[in-house]
Amino acid sequence: MLHNPHATGAEARAAIRAGQWTGPTAGLAPGYTQANLTILPEADAFDFLRFCVRNPKPCPMLDVTDPGSPHPDPAWAEGADLRTDAPRYRVFERGELVDEPTDLLDWWRDDLVTFLLGCSFTFERALLAAGVPVRHLEYGCNVSMYRTTRQCRPAGRFHGPLVVTMRPIPGNLVARAVQVTSRYPSVHGAPVHIGDPAALGIVDLAQPDYGDPVPVEAGEVPVFWACGVTPQAVALESRVPLMITHTPGHMFVTDRLDEELAGR
Amino acid sequence: MLHNPHATGAEARAAIRAGQWTGPTAGLAPGYTQANLTILPEADAFDFLRFCVRNPKPCPMLDVTDPGSPHPDPAWAEGADLRTDAPRYRVFERGELVDEPTDLLDWWRDDLVTFLLGCSFTFERALLAAGVPVRHLEYGCNVSMYRTTRQCRPAGRFHGPLVVTMRPIPGNLVARAVQVTSRYPSVHGAPVHIGDPAALGIVDLAQPDYGDPVPVEAGEVPVFWACGVTPQAVALESRVPLMITHTPGHMFVTDRLDEELAGR
Repeated sequence: MLHNPHATGAEARAAIRAGQWTGPTAGLAPGYTQANLTILPEADAFDFLRFCVRNPKPCPMLDVTDPGSPHPDPAWAEGADLRTDAPRYRVFERGELVDEPTDLLDWWRDDLVTFLLGCSFTFERALLAAGVPVRHLEYGCNVSMYRTTRQCRPAGRFHGPLVVTMRPIPGNLVARAVQVTSRYPSVHGAPVHIGDPAALGIVDLAQPDYGDPVPVEAGEVPVFWACGVTPQAVALESRVPLMITHTPGHMFVTDRLDEELAGR
Repeated sequence: MLHNPHATGAEARAAIRAGQWTGPTAGLAPGYTQANLTILPEADAFDFLRFCVRNPKPCPMLDVTDPGSPHPDPAWAEGADLRTDAPRYRVFERGELVDEPTDLLDWWRDDLVTFLLGCSFTFERALLAAGVPVRHLEYGCNVSMYRTTRQCRPAGRFHGPLVVTMRPIPGNLVARAVQVTSRYPSVHGAPVHIGDPAALGIVDLAQPDYGDPVPVEAGEVPVFWACGVTPQAVALESRVPLMITHTPGHMFVTDRLDEELAGR
């Protein structure tokens, strides 16, 4: 039901909140923008906010809540509750995964601040609509992700590597892929690197650090985009006392249409 | 000298720091991006940061400094000192203008946070380059600015109206103006409104709230963009204990080229 073309973001959140859906959100409420979640105590939130400002490609901020409020801006998700409306969460203490609950009711605190960060699901839909193949969707697997040797610009206690996704693109469609994703700066925007993986310190494309390997075929070029896993890698490396994220692929579904993000 | 086509942002800042230039910065170091400054105590900075996230069109953040640091990210302005490198500043206490110094050496505190916000000078150059006339530049006056009845989304103690600039654009070039400014989301981006001023609560275009009146001629349409004066109007309405800005038109000149901001 949630995968039918008429399902709304609000319907997806209601089903998730009711415990009727605990799986990955790819394909749910088609056309509605999904977001990464990063949740931090207020004491670390200002540092992380500056980190996002300094690293807008991996960390494009869609919304930041008031401290203690589990409610995002209604313009993003009317009536939503961030404690219950993602299918699954990951709780990290000093960089260690300590829990993976389906809601945060036991973990919520009055000083928590939630960051909604853009997700590349939005531009993947746009790539497909423009005739650019998205190989990992064809294979039915996860996108390949790599920790690079490129460091993010630090802010306060937050520092660490840029994480990128890689999509193999046929040479005659690379320019199109740049054009299409450039229209979506709030969901990572244009690629950060095209071609030689070694320039990013990636030794073997067949061994991604996260996700699944996706082969680059003859005539295709590996194209790299900044990835929303970056804040998680950075927060882990920074060993913050408490950080909560969604479980990768188990995103927060908003009320905004993907097309509303074009050109923002 | 600073207006010659080879002057750099660093040269402009050095001359301003040395007291050799205290005037408006329009036309200085042509091609280098200029920025709005908003400076607040750390106690208010997190609220204002969330305000900017929620209102990205009037408040596009280019950089946010660490508390107490007068140095922006070197990627924006190598070796710069925010206390001395704008020609003139305005100091507000609880919404009252109390000083307009040429440096902040007497006002600086260890808890101040500086926000660099995008400035429409960047997209005006792009409009001219695309053959779209910019009337207030032709008249040699300031752009017309209006407080609207549209409220910004509040954050913490910050609330207030959206301020817009208006540029009259010939009807056959309005689409071009949208296309060109859409490429610059980090300097206010595409227009927020085109046509009827009454829809924004503007009663008389000939009576701007800031800047100079600019007539709309036959065949032209008033086109409205979100304006970097918004944070100042908002901070005044919010009556924060201390806020420091640049004096309007007396901007902070960065090392980045206007063209580097295209598509960001």
